[in-house]
Amino acid sequence: MSEKQAKMKKGRPAGLGVAHADLSDYEGTGAVHMDLIKRRAAHFGGSLLFYHDPVQIVRGEGVWLYDENGRAYLDCYNNVCSVGHCNPRVVQAVTKQAGELNTHTRYLHETIIEYAEKLAGTFPGDLDMCLFVCTGTEANELAMLIARAVTGKRGAIVMDHSYHGNSTLIGEMSTSTYSRKKRPDHIAAVEPPNLYRGRYNAEEPGVGAKYAAFVDAGIQKLEANGQGVAALMCDGIFDSQGGLEAPKDYFEHVYAKVRAAGGLCIADEVQPGFGRTGRMWGFEQYGVLPDIVTLGKPMGNGHPVAGVVTTPEIMQQFADKSFYFNTFGGNPVSAAAGKAVLEEIEEKNLVSHVAAVGAHLRAGLEELATRHEIIGNVHGIGLYQALDLVKDRETREAAREECQQIPDALKEEGILLGLTGPHGNVLKIRPPLVFDKSNADQLIGSLDKVLGSIRIGS
Amino acid sequence: MSEKQAKMKKGRPAGLGVAHADLSDYEGTGAVHMDLIKRRAAHFGGSLLFYHDPVQIVRGEGVWLYDENGRAYLDCYNNVCSVGHCNPRVVQAVTKQAGELNTHTRYLHETIIEYAEKLAGTFPGDLDMCLFVCTGTEANELAMLIARAVTGKRGAIVMDHSYHGNSTLIGEMSTSTYSRKKRPDHIAAVEPPNLYRGRYNAEEPGVGAKYAAFVDAGIQKLEANGQGVAALMCDGIFDSQGGLEAPKDYFEHVYAKVRAAGGLCIADEVQPGFGRTGRMWGFEQYGVLPDIVTLGKPMGNGHPVAGVVTTPEIMQQFADKSFYFNTFGGNPVSAAAGKAVLEEIEEKNLVSHVAAVGAHLRAGLEELATRHEIIGNVHGIGLYQALDLVKDRETREAAREECQQIPDALKEEGILLGLTGPHGNVLKIRPPLVFDKSNADQLIGSLDKVLGSIRIGS
Repeated sequence: MSEKQAKMKKGRPAGLGVAHADLSDYEGTGAVHMDLIKRRAAHFGGSLLFYHDPVQIVRGEGVWLYDENGRAYLDCYNNVCSVGHCNPRVVQAVTKQAGELNTHTRYLHETIIEYAEKLAGTFPGDLDMCLFVCTGTEANELAMLIARAVTGKRGAIVMDHSYHGNSTLIGEMSTSTYSRKKRPDHIAAVEPPNLYRGRYNAEEPGVGAKYAAFVDAGIQKLEANGQGVAALMCDGIFDSQGGLEAPKDYFEHVYAKVRAAGGLCIADEVQPGFGRTGRMWGFEQYGVLPDIVTLGKPMGNGHPVAGVVTTPEIMQQFADKSFYFNTFGGNPVSAAAGKAVLEEIEEKNLVSHVAAVGAHLRAGLEELATRHEIIGNVHGIGLYQALDLVKDRETREAAREECQQIPDALKEEGILLGLTGPHGNVLKIRPPLVFDKSNADQLIGSLDKVLGSIRIGS
Repeated sequence: MSEKQAKMKKGRPAGLGVAHADLSDYEGTGAVHMDLIKRRAAHFGGSLLFYHDPVQIVRGEGVWLYDENGRAYLDCYNNVCSVGHCNPRVVQAVTKQAGELNTHTRYLHETIIEYAEKLAGTFPGDLDMCLFVCTGTEANELAMLIARAVTGKRGAIVMDHSYHGNSTLIGEMSTSTYSRKKRPDHIAAVEPPNLYRGRYNAEEPGVGAKYAAFVDAGIQKLEANGQGVAALMCDGIFDSQGGLEAPKDYFEHVYAKVRAAGGLCIADEVQPGFGRTGRMWGFEQYGVLPDIVTLGKPMGNGHPVAGVVTTPEIMQQFADKSFYFNTFGGNPVSAAAGKAVLEEIEEKNLVSHVAAVGAHLRAGLEELATRHEIIGNVHGIGLYQALDLVKDRETREAAREECQQIPDALKEEGILLGLTGPHGNVLKIRPPLVFDKSNADQLIGSLDKVLGSIRIGS
């Protein structure tokens, strides 16, 4: 590995977990699957593998993933197959529709209409119009196309260390992925409301308004640059920032500022959406109503389905000025997958299930924190919980190196888990939503063991 | 419909076919499915319907689509389900894999490795590395990320009236979708090699070099703008330009110019790729080797699969400077779908089938041209054939209004067909690749009838 590659690798978002760039990382490490790793490296580009000794997964069911030897791993990481790996209702819906018809949305088809009706029905206010695309990146691209068309402005406000996707524009809006020096004129990034590591803690009077005030500088920057504010885009679970709990009034203040500047408020619900937070939509916990919502990951339980939801007024303004077509977006199979996911969430009462299991998991994590000095803070919501690991509780110095050993060690215990946060020191617990209390207890037990084995400074 | 909307609608690319913006277009027209159209308009945004009296399609098989009454339509339009609607091998592969596992590419999985090996094996030269994404737009976005990272430049050369996708950057590279006045500094568009309507015809000495010379001005513009040439992106079938046959040496000259300017050559094979032209890859007919190839539409026969193929050297340079991850891209189900499509193309000898049926279809279209004055020119390749319709063979005035009646009329005959081209006067024949000679004969018969019923100036 060259020095440049080593530097690049160090700069990779910790959210990617333990990741490797090329074959030389594995040679001589005793990695079990060197044959597959070599074959893969010969023709497959772009995506890094998890783990120093990468795992081969061949089967999934519910919260379980299985390797080629039949060993079971408790999945505490994956948020795509959120109604459970290989959920029978979704598999059945995809199978049936794929055998009947898979075209596009330029012919009439009942399933896409039913799905749009059903999806719109889960949103409060006048968030009534659905547009379908294939990935979270495409959803965020479309949201920005809409925001720019409707406002006539170009600038976007995002959080520091954000991640919203992988296209050119959405990559620019993903401030965790490139150097601050390269930030374009149309992007302003503001400090996120981190009550543990940020400028203000939970006891600070008016803490929500104080964090929201950082948005003022973002607005000023975009106006000074001649860009204006087309939109704020924010993931309300703050995944790439370490999974934060914002002050309850934070978004109310932020949305008011963005709207006063003529911008639209885009809630990136690719991660928090579809029940992850113990509410159907992440923004609901903050008592705000976005102008545009973007959806992705769990929407089709692995089938590439994503979407944008907005108001009829905004939709009409966009349609007056522009048009949009996505070949695969909203095709009958994608619509069948999405509809089956909604039905599953509804019939299994997954949203309240998440609230209950999330609270149980949280209590277990807080109990762990009473016994493991390395846990600086426990935060998160629903089935997104995070442990901020520290070398020292006084200084709160990030335990980056220690944290990065944990996914490998947990894998040996039969648990799949990842990292996040700007310092690479946050353990991210983000299992499929069908995760239950006994799964949570198993995770707590393994975390107890692994955290107990980590030596600070090791 | 407001005047503005009417204007917008007029400006829509003809490739979208006969399209409607909103409910008011259908009220009082006697459209059969007003109930569905109304329900759809209430919650579904973004995609326009084909036909003045939109069709409801409920089932597909091979080259046939069926409406709710069981009426069969011969599909002469759709290029996504190219190994046939509901191809049993693909449906079976998706069904099996969806029931076993659907994760992402950060764990090892054999299918994605096998698929990358198999796909790379279909490319000439050192086009050996595959990256997987979900849509053609994502493939073109990734190609541009790679080109910009590798060259350190930002500019892109595209054709006039191009279409490459729907994101912000790729939308800017889709010059058919917005006014020339809004063209950004990093985009240069050049005249495509239209031997019927362009500056030079097939008899012009050195016609390939003469059309290629338009690229010089594009390079100069991008250099004068301080952007430099990161890439040329071109769809070698020229779908949005009306489906052109370029002079055989055109791309050889163009590629030499782009490379001399330090840029990479991107072949957008989203339309021509996977056998459409009677060769596996569209660029093969021109004897050139692109630096980057982008894939989409037929790659998964309707499952949202797309990709980028490039050389190990370019891949390594990109990996040294950047990283890329796509959540759904290359997941086991997408890989299984893609692999089944390749197997189907191989085992059914679809590439040579396309060459044979394409030649048969072409002969039929040329015979029609001897009897129908409205046919100004027949062009295209393989199973992409196009009729440039004219009001007058001498003046070659585009028969736009006449052409736009034809899809509706053919639908009544049980044939689905669309339009394309900057003047909206080109009938585009682009069926699934399993289309056979008897299907071609049926289409020729219906075209004969419908063209005979069109009155010029009507």
